[in-house]
Parts: sequence; structure tokens; C-alpha cells
Amino acid sequence: MPRSINEPNDTALLPEGLHDTLAHTAEHEAEIVEKLRQCFASHGYERVVPPLMEFEESLLIGPGKAQSRNMFRVMDPVTQRMMAVRTDMTGQVARIARTRLRNAPRPLRLSYSGDVLRVRGTQLRPEREFKQAGVELIGSDSTEAYVEIILLARNVLSSVGIANASIDLTMPLLVPAICRGLGLSKEVSATVRHALNAKDMGELETLDGEIGEISRALLAATGAADAGMDILNKINLPTEAREICGEMDILLARLKEVAPELSMTLDPGEYTGFEFQTGIGFSLFVKGVRGELGRGGRYPVEGDDSPEPATGFSLYLDSLMRALPEMTALKYIYCPYGMDMAAIADLRDQGYRTICGLQEAEDDRAEAQRLKCQYLWQADNVIEC
Amino acid sequence: MPRSINEPNDTALLPEGLHDTLAHTAEHEAEIVEKLRQCFASHGYERVVPPLMEFEESLLIGPGKAQSRNMFRVMDPVTQRMMAVRTDMTGQVARIARTRLRNAPRPLRLSYSGDVLRVRGTQLRPEREFKQAGVELIGSDSTEAYVEIILLARNVLSSVGIANASIDLTMPLLVPAICRGLGLSKEVSATVRHALNAKDMGELETLDGEIGEISRALLAATGAADAGMDILNKINLPTEAREICGEMDILLARLKEVAPELSMTLDPGEYTGFEFQTGIGFSLFVKGVRGELGRGGRYPVEGDDSPEPATGFSLYLDSLMRALPEMTALKYIYCPYGMDMAAIADLRDQGYRTICGLQEAEDDRAEAQRLKCQYLWQADNVIEC
Repeated sequence: MPRSINEPNDTALLPEGLHDTLAHTAEHEAEIVEKLRQCFASHGYERVVPPLMEFEESLLIGPGKAQSRNMFRVMDPVTQRMMAVRTDMTGQVARIARTRLRNAPRPLRLSYSGDVLRVRGTQLRPEREFKQAGVELIGSDSTEAYVEIILLARNVLSSVGIANASIDLTMPLLVPAICRGLGLSKEVSATVRHALNAKDMGELETLDGEIGEISRALLAATGAADAGMDILNKINLPTEAREICGEMDILLARLKEVAPELSMTLDPGEYTGFEFQTGIGFSLFVKGVRGELGRGGRYPVEGDDSPEPATGFSLYLDSLMRALPEMTALKYIYCPYGMDMAAIADLRDQGYRTICGLQEAEDDRAEAQRLKCQYLWQADNVIEC
Repeated sequence: MPRSINEPNDTALLPEGLHDTLAHTAEHEAEIVEKLRQCFASHGYERVVPPLMEFEESLLIGPGKAQSRNMFRVMDPVTQRMMAVRTDMTGQVARIARTRLRNAPRPLRLSYSGDVLRVRGTQLRPEREFKQAGVELIGSDSTEAYVEIILLARNVLSSVGIANASIDLTMPLLVPAICRGLGLSKEVSATVRHALNAKDMGELETLDGEIGEISRALLAATGAADAGMDILNKINLPTEAREICGEMDILLARLKEVAPELSMTLDPGEYTGFEFQTGIGFSLFVKGVRGELGRGGRYPVEGDDSPEPATGFSLYLDSLMRALPEMTALKYIYCPYGMDMAAIADLRDQGYRTICGLQEAEDDRAEAQRLKCQYLWQADNVIEC
């Protein structure tokens, strides 16, 4: 039986949306974060660790912008300027790429992991503090950059034991390009975007003419990537929109070539959460697990010079943990008082976790059980309790 | 040559005392934190991860009290109560022990690691954000608890490659007990405490009578633990003070027995930073390294019931990193565009960090050098650049 610690439910102790992570869960999470770090590193992504808090305006880059009302802010008595706690790490990585690492060779590969804090949680993620880990490939606008990032997402998930993630590809620029190409009014464009994003067939049925046909075809293209791409290739689209679909076609073909086992879906109408992106986006899911495991795509890294294209993804540790089986039981062994230190160190080297008696116990076995150890050292041997 | 990234000095980008950690340094730090975690776990200390921010009053326990003017505070719009960012994790661990884990068997062994933030740095540690990692052994007031904690400090430092740390033992209760025992006035007691803490021989020379003799003997006892203990044992002390010295004597004897190689010093007059402690304290140093690596001791964990004794220590990652040699060079290899994916994965399994070309390069070797790789894949072989 795994060793477990009693946890009375004292929710009032902590502010809503903030929590303590204990024992097994805490260790498992730390192990997963460590595996992610090693996998990112082995793929040539160098780790950066920005501070938890920095000047407010530095955090309003990229996805940070969307969270600006969700930042905890404090006045810094030292600099007399407003600082904020990060709500997302992508903007900080972009800042580092465009300032301290502006002279590093491109493409630049960076990775990160850390805590983020938000003033309010969402319905899907009520937590106000959670861990994020991810990568950015900065300075390339090639299709191959998408390929590298998507394969890295697959590799990193499989390195922690998730082999069945599916990748939902989005094209946040497609619908706006179609609306522009057809010369639609702002109002009609907004209706189309909303109806497609919400997958509202009722509303799409009310659209007349070319945009009606295209929209319904886009909705029909939502689902398995191969079939969806076939539908997209048959729609008559304005030039710019056709180019966007062309890039997706090339990406899918290349992914099929190098990773035929990937489970991919297409969602050409989705844009929620991809507003700041300037190319193909994607979400990572596992069937039956609440919340996406992560999301990624391409966005511009802005700086003093012209923006640089970046492609990357972020994983959310809370969803990731929900997609994983529980950690295998840890082996705790009770080492009675006075036991030889070298023998205790030996047990640790063998993978036991040693719990040492601080004084002689009346009954070693009873003491081992009281301390929830599964093993006991007795007569120079490991004994099961 | 190790791969290194150009880092222009853009200090104005970040608030004073906050910084980005990049590349090698960031990875090295993450590796050290991971080794600490594994070492704590192998010794039976279970990991807890409290939130970065919680209700202000929860953070004013134990060492948090001393930092109360140094906390970043925010009004939480959700709970309409003041929250603060932690300045130290010990108080949070104490809160967990006394609430959620109040029914877990004693002694309770907990470990932690994480970031802490302070409004102002100190002269010795100008950083306002730094990482802390440590352990607490809760529910025992035995000498053996000190032994376990001090040996764990030795083991954990040696697990990250620091074999030459010295342990400076303090007795923050000793001087107050002497002053009480001799019936000294508040003023004289304060003078004695201050002069001993500051090791101010000039001021100690001005003290007459018994307290003068004792104080000068205490100062003489500062230094190597064995010689210091001999001096302490010869001083004529009031009962309570004698008992405190007696406990130190037993601790030193036991440590000598189980870990004769330990380098220990004694500082019987020191109390700065040990104000909240109720027993023996200690600091961890490495000669020539700025700042202490960590400190520990015994303090009371307060809760609804009577306080529980806890013994533990915290390590400061910034000083720890300064005490370590640089990480061994990482092996980066350039994998030209189109290289077989399985071959790339093989290189990663062999410990290489793979940097993949996103397109064909005119000259693979030149491209590998531009990307600061030491190796290159050419004609199915690893070649040095």
C-alpha cells in the first residue's frame, strides 16, 4: 500500500484558487517538470529563468496583453514604479530574446518552466496559480519550424508517459482573410467569425451567398485532419486565404511523412485564445482529461527592430498531471535508532527512502507501521511490514 | 569550448534586485535544485509545495515575522482580504504541518524548494528574488533531531559536490539564560548580548565581575568546536545556561562519533538571524564564498494546540551556486536538414543536444559553427567542428 498522509480539508486556510500541493502529488509534479526540462534541453532548447515579477509594461507583450486585467500589481518602493506578477511566461521569454539575447544566432531556441499567477481563474481552470513549461523557436517563419515544434510537443509528452495526445490545428488568420477577400462588412465578418468559433450551425445556416457556402464548408472541415484538408482544398477561396490553407496542406504532408502516427484534427474556425497569433496554432488534448494540456503556434516577438517570428508552445502542468497515471508507490523503510550509518546510506542507494528512529522504539515493527513505512530493517535485512 | 550566448548588460530592463538567469547558469541551477529534491526525498522528507502568495497573516509565523516589513502585499479582489508574497518558506511549511498535516504521525519530515521575494535586498544579498530549499523535522525536541538535520545538511551539500562546508553552531538562548541567571538588568543584558554578537572585545573589556569573565570566556570559546567546548565546560555558569551548554556537549560528542570528518565551529555569542529560534542554531559556510549557504536550527511551530518543536534548515541557491564549480560543457551537435529522425533521437540518447537545421545549409560546418555547436553530423558520423 502506498504511504499516504492524512489531509483534512482546510480550504479556508488559503485564498480561493491557491493551494498546497503535498507529498506524492508534489513529488510527481517535480519529477514531471524535471523530465520536461531534460527533454527540452536534449532538443537544443536553452533554459531561461525570468523573475516572477517585473515592470508592468514588460509583461504586456504577446499573450500577456490579453491577461492585463488579470495581473497582480504592486508599487515597487525601490524603483517607485509599478511592477506586476507574471500571468504567462511567453512574453518574458520574448523580452529576453529581443534584449539580452538579441545578438545570439538565429534561430534561437529557448525553454522555460515556472509559476504564473492570475487575479481570477476561469471556469475551466479555477486555479489562480499554476505551473507552465514551454519552448520558443525564434527567428524562423518556415513550415519546418512548425514541424520541429509539433514533434517536440509529441516527444516531450511521450517522455512523461503521454502517448495518446491529439493535436488540434487551428488557423486563426483564415476567417479574417476570407472576409477581407470577399469584401465583407465589419458586422458580417464578426458574425461569421463568432458563428464559426462557436460552431453554431444554426447561425451559419442564415448566411447567404459565397460566405455562407464557405463557412458551412469550413465547419464541415472541422475534425480529422486528412478529411478536413481535402474539404479545404476543394473550397473556392480568395488568394490570401488559399495561401493560408496551402501552408497547412504542406505542414500536414510533412508531418505525415516524418510522424505518420500523430493523431491530428483541424479546426479552421477556432480563434479563442489564438488572438495574438500570426500563423497556424494548435492545442494539445487527451481524450477524457479536463482542460487542454497546452497550446502553441506562431506569434510576432516585438522589439526595437522589426518583429521576429516565433513558434512555440506552453504546457499547463495541472492538466498534464491529470492526464498521467499516479506515481508508482515509493518504498519507505524504517531504520531503527543506532543502525549503522553506512548501511542506511546503502539502502538509499538501493532506492529506499530511509526513515530513521530518533530513539529506541519498544517495538520496531509497530513503530515502522505507525510511521507508514512498508519496510523495516531487522537483523541486517529488509523485512516487509 | 562550451557553447555560450552573448549577454549584453541591460540592467535597466528589470527592477533592481530582480534578474533573468540564462542558459548554462539556469540549467545548472535547475540540476542542483533537482539533486537537492532527490536527496531530501531519499532521507524520507516528503515534498510540500505551498502557494507563492497567501493571506498576509499566515505568512507572519516563525521567521516570516522578522520579514513582515519586507513583504509585497496586494489586496485580493476575490476574497477582499490582504495577501502577501512569501519572503521565506519555513512559515508556510509550519502552517501545513499544523493544519492539513496535523494528524500525520510525528516526527513529520517535510521538504520544500521554491522562490521567495522580498521588497528590499540586504547588503550581503542584494537579490530581491531567490530560491530557497530546505527541510523540517517536526515533533521532536531530541538531540538526535539536530544530529539527523546536520547530517542531512552534510549529505545534501555533498550530493551536489560541496564536500568542504563548515558548520557554525550557535546557541541563541545561552547569553539570555546567563543574564537571567545572574540577575542582570535589562540594560546590562542588552550590552552583553550586543557586544558578544558583534564580537566587540573592546566593549567586553569594560564589563566587570562575573559577567565580564563569562563574556570574555564565551568570546574565547568562539572558533573550532572542540576547543570551544572545552572552554565552555570550564566556565562557572548558572543552571539553565549550564544545561544549554550540556546539550551542545552531547550534540558535539554524538556528531564526532557518527561523522568525525565534519568541520565544526562554535559561536556561543551570535544571535543575529536566530531570534525566532528556541535551541541550537547553525549556519553553513564555504571558505571564500560570499554569503552563507544556508542556516538552520530549532524553532517552535505554533498552532491551535501547544507549540511543536521543529528542527530544520534552509539553503539559499544563490550562495550555493557560488560555491560550486561551473557545469561541465554541454555537447551540442548540428543535425543538417533532412537527417533521419531516428538517428537524431539516437544522438539525444547518447547525451548530445541536437540542433536541427530548418533548411539545407550551403555549408554544414559553417552553419554548425554559427549556431555554436561543437559537433556536426556528417556522412553518418559525429564530427568535431
